[in-house]
Amino acid sequence: MRVLVLGGDGYLGWPTALHLSDNGHEIAIVDNFARRRYDEELGVESLIPIEDMDTRVEAWQEISGKRITAYQGDLLDDEFAFQVLREFAPEAVVHFAEQRSAPYSMIDRRHAVYTQHNNVVGTLNLLYAIAKIDPDIHLVKLGTMGEYGTPNIDIEEGWLDVEHNGRTDRMLFPKRPGSFYHLSKVHDSHNIEFACRAWGLRATDLNQGVVYGQETPQTARDPRLATRFDYDAVFGTVLNRFVIQAVLGQPLTVYGRGGQQRGLIDIRDTVECIRLAVENRADRGEFRVFNQMTESFSVQGIAELVAERFPGPVQIEHLDNPRVEAAEHYYNVKHTGLVELGLKPHLLSDTLIESMFDIVGANKHRADTEKLHPQIRWTEVTEPARV
Amino acid sequence: MRVLVLGGDGYLGWPTALHLSDNGHEIAIVDNFARRRYDEELGVESLIPIEDMDTRVEAWQEISGKRITAYQGDLLDDEFAFQVLREFAPEAVVHFAEQRSAPYSMIDRRHAVYTQHNNVVGTLNLLYAIAKIDPDIHLVKLGTMGEYGTPNIDIEEGWLDVEHNGRTDRMLFPKRPGSFYHLSKVHDSHNIEFACRAWGLRATDLNQGVVYGQETPQTARDPRLATRFDYDAVFGTVLNRFVIQAVLGQPLTVYGRGGQQRGLIDIRDTVECIRLAVENRADRGEFRVFNQMTESFSVQGIAELVAERFPGPVQIEHLDNPRVEAAEHYYNVKHTGLVELGLKPHLLSDTLIESMFDIVGANKHRADTEKLHPQIRWTEVTEPARV
Repeated sequence: MRVLVLGGDGYLGWPTALHLSDNGHEIAIVDNFARRRYDEELGVESLIPIEDMDTRVEAWQEISGKRITAYQGDLLDDEFAFQVLREFAPEAVVHFAEQRSAPYSMIDRRHAVYTQHNNVVGTLNLLYAIAKIDPDIHLVKLGTMGEYGTPNIDIEEGWLDVEHNGRTDRMLFPKRPGSFYHLSKVHDSHNIEFACRAWGLRATDLNQGVVYGQETPQTARDPRLATRFDYDAVFGTVLNRFVIQAVLGQPLTVYGRGGQQRGLIDIRDTVECIRLAVENRADRGEFRVFNQMTESFSVQGIAELVAERFPGPVQIEHLDNPRVEAAEHYYNVKHTGLVELGLKPHLLSDTLIESMFDIVGANKHRADTEKLHPQIRWTEVTEPARV
Repeated sequence: MRVLVLGGDGYLGWPTALHLSDNGHEIAIVDNFARRRYDEELGVESLIPIEDMDTRVEAWQEISGKRITAYQGDLLDDEFAFQVLREFAPEAVVHFAEQRSAPYSMIDRRHAVYTQHNNVVGTLNLLYAIAKIDPDIHLVKLGTMGEYGTPNIDIEEGWLDVEHNGRTDRMLFPKRPGSFYHLSKVHDSHNIEFACRAWGLRATDLNQGVVYGQETPQTARDPRLATRFDYDAVFGTVLNRFVIQAVLGQPLTVYGRGGQQRGLIDIRDTVECIRLAVENRADRGEFRVFNQMTESFSVQGIAELVAERFPGPVQIEHLDNPRVEAAEHYYNVKHTGLVELGLKPHLLSDTLIESMFDIVGANKHRADTEKLHPQIRWTEVTEPARV
């Protein structure tokens, strides 16, 4: 299948491109390299060195014999978006091309506006391009489990059967997220659902949990194929960050008491979920939603798991929670859709964490421990910085 | 009370400013005059002549003895937004300052992006300004009944008590709107609810029905105080448009069979609802929602009502529905919140329609009948026009 991977230079976009290419699909990547610029802005780097796009693509061709086409450009540039869709003529578009950090979106007004504008308008341009150029293209869009917030009922996969005053309806699951980033994904979901209804587009919205891990079978084949691995408090996600803190001999920084729950997923399952969604497309007019996660843990539970597995002493430190979220809450997520398509989850009870210790250990000299502590507080409203 | 009316030059913003001023509040208006530029873009004009802002404000001072301060500027300009809030130091902000036409948002990609960017980013800037300058300011934000779409259950006021698998929660009412404009208001609502939760802001979200009528007790006091009255297919709302079509001897253009239902509200009730919301502010941290409408009619029912009341022959024409909406649907809207605050609704069984015939009759020479027919079809995706 011809698959266009938007945001194909990122933490998950790159391994997804390789996984799909390895599975026989014809792949093109689009990226504006915004993620690399956030590193410059924040003064951090991927813990594991990553190559530039040309080197990555050449290395993959050398190793696999398979070609990936790379386009540099921005979805905010509608002419570019239309041109790429016309030129590559994909059958599916996998859309990772969004600013994906909640703390980044909460830095200040400018970052909140940037995040919502970038994510919402980029996706709008994409929807128009698909509708105009080929409404048969299947849009596979990355959302986040954080869109749901923490309702006191079971979290269904995007839709909820509601009974109220003796009448029933199948409705979009009511969402109440906890940052301007998560909100941007809620806005996207609403826009995409409308485009399916109005224009008969096909879309799969993947509400992804917190991804952990750094290697996939494809990225492991050559150091030049490595994907990024973030440890800082802005872009580092919880389990990865704890692993890095353990290896560095730093305390694991749990926000609040750590009673807040997270849906998790192994990076190898992420790329496989995308493959399954791509190869089993949504119907015309269908807005299909999967919860792309495999198990739930409390943040404290994740910290304890990492501490238990690490072959050395580990301290757990409880910081004031910089986020706006419930300290304790009900969390029961339905996630059977992708399993029904064939996903065989890797669970944390597997050996993955141990393998991460080695990868991190080999690169620990690259870490700036000052970047591990959260500086961005949700409740603090900073002055608008000038662009 | 010191009340800032954003979008105070518009169809409803201006009468609201006068109504609040007349009721003893100290008023400032903000407008970027975007609405007047849409007229130029679309080649239409308000059926009733309106004065420029300076003349309006001077006329009001001459007639009422009351001063209204006018600021020209754009909420997208965050420095301007912060400056106005600092300078005027309002206790409440009434926010009408959004692109408010569904057909306009569906013209093409550029208009969809413009609408969502303008509405969502303008409101984000406002939320940051309130949070930073004075989180005690009460935000009274205009939403629309169209945010809900047409669920098969009763439409509650913004929140829904959900029972699911034996557990319960009070959740945001799930919305599924029918245009990129309506979606922009859904995005706003989610952003505002989060700002209330994260920063303890006070907000009232008014999901307004289709407003009809042109005169309020204040605007009627002098022709220079008139508010705009739109008859074109882009900005003209359904009942107003039918009245104008009847007077012009044109067929009333019902989209589809006219089975789709609309919540309606008299312009005099709109301005009174805003006063009630302003004078009975939401609590700190509260995201309060009212459905600002007083009765429901089918579009066919509205056409028949106008035809019945008009003292002459009227034809009803059924056009292909250019919108994406259910032809027939359940529609039962709860709207008791504003009545509990003291609203005494004007219903269509009153004499209002007849008085509109006279106003329209006096200005019918100004109408361009070609602008009455819808040109924008929701399902048609046009090429992106260059800005």
